Amino acid sequence: MIPNDMTIHIISDSIGQTALTVVNSATVQYPQIKFNIIVHNFVDNQEELLNILQKIRGENEVIIHTLAQNNLNQIVENYCKNNDITHLDFLHPLLSVIEEKTGQQASEVVGAKPVMDENYFERNSAMEFAVSYDDGQQTEGLAHADIILLGISRTSKTPLSIYLAYLNYKVANIPLYPEVQVPEEIFDIDPNKIIGLTTNLDALIKIRQERMKSYGMDPDSSYSSWTRIRAELEYAEKLYDQLGCLVIDVTHRSIEETASLILSHFK
Amino acid sequence: MIPNDMTIHIISDSIGQTALTVVNSATVQYPQIKFNIIVHNFVDNQEELLNILQKIRGENEVIIHTLAQNNLNQIVENYCKNNDITHLDFLHPLLSVIEEKTGQQASEVVGAKPVMDENYFERNSAMEFAVSYDDGQQTEGLAHADIILLGISRTSKTPLSIYLAYLNYKVANIPLYPEVQVPEEIFDIDPNKIIGLTTNLDALIKIRQERMKSYGMDPDSSYSSWTRIRAELEYAEKLYDQLGCLVIDVTHRSIEETASLILSHFK
Repeated sequence: MIPNDMTIHIISDSIGQTALTVVNSATVQYPQIKFNIIVHNFVDNQEELLNILQKIRGENEVIIHTLAQNNLNQIVENYCKNNDITHLDFLHPLLSVIEEKTGQQASEVVGAKPVMDENYFERNSAMEFAVSYDDGQQTEGLAHADIILLGISRTSKTPLSIYLAYLNYKVANIPLYPEVQVPEEIFDIDPNKIIGLTTNLDALIKIRQERMKSYGMDPDSSYSSWTRIRAELEYAEKLYDQLGCLVIDVTHRSIEETASLILSHFK
Repeated sequence: MIPNDMTIHIISDSIGQTALTVVNSATVQYPQIKFNIIVHNFVDNQEELLNILQKIRGENEVIIHTLAQNNLNQIVENYCKNNDITHLDFLHPLLSVIEEKTGQQASEVVGAKPVMDENYFERNSAMEFAVSYDDGQQTEGLAHADIILLGISRTSKTPLSIYLAYLNYKVANIPLYPEVQVPEEIFDIDPNKIIGLTTNLDALIKIRQERMKSYGMDPDSSYSSWTRIRAELEYAEKLYDQLGCLVIDVTHRSIEETASLILSHFK
């Protein structure tokens, strides 16, 4: 019988994030399979590598490796060949192409230093921007933002801002409360740069109740009440209408998905 | 003659971040080559895809694709075959392995919804944690942090916190000033959880002068003076000694590198 679960071992000489990103992109295509993803990171010597390999034997296991040192790669390949284990090298196919095209050799440096070019510094300053313009902390200089997110509490403004910052966009987010006037600056900004986040009433009630519980507070406070949240959502909708901005419903959407929708709108 | 520069086209039906991560990991191995990386994102129909492909002809160009739809993949493969262009599929080799092992079919959903599992929510709350514990804004609850970063101004505390949050760690960062007492809580925390960031005096002077210029202020203020910065660095070193924490010099290190060092220390 074909198993309906699968173990993916990621073996990396650094954090293992590169391989994990690809694995996540692939595994989401199979919601019916239970994946067990194990990251073995900072593996930079033969002994440690062999130790890990010797525990991998199963039918439904696969090895993904991103190892800069060729001798370590060779060990993985030999082990997999001798034990009939499927493996994929996520790094070397591209290295081979680069070498073939340019005649240059890879430096084989473990976790090679990323180039600290202009992009690199831009991304860092985008992150600093997102942090200082989080939750409406600052309104001065709001016009310098590439993207302004509006939303009531628990519409994923913060992680969304950070994720977009990681993709090099300067993002500000502003919380909406019916009782508080939004900063006047908002009305002078190009509405194409503004995104209004909204969500489903019932989903939001649950999320807020969970939040109250995690704070050790009464889950049925006004913060999580039906009438309160409906009033907040209505206030937000009215404001989005007035601004003429794009509105995105974040219910059941991951941060990556919402970010895709936003960037696709800018495209 | 073999060219010493190379263009990498990333064609994605979503943001293109997955492929870019792998490309970045590979290209850093060749500091001597000038890479031109072009991301064509949100490509989800034949017409747009053909438009992009028709402009790719060069000797030193290569195509990386991560397209969920099989028919779009087929178009790339045919075009590359007919025009003798090197291409790499970053997604389908893994999809094939999964299908072979489990007998399941990929959903072919463009930018398939990432599974919003426990990890997903943990990462979002790690990001929120990093933002609310940025720059010493909060000290209550500091003990809940997985990692506490200390450092004087411009030692990359904020982007580092965010990057580690993205890897699921709860990080707080606290700025150090000789005139301000660090929060008492620090001395009760396991020093293994604390990382002291330091940097080279000359490098820091330059960075701070740049910062002052970007604010339209005098670059030779006390903030960027030699005596001031030396005093700050000495104060930080003394504190790190007292705490007995790991010290990392961030000069010429990228965020990813420093993060690797930190995580490797925790391992």
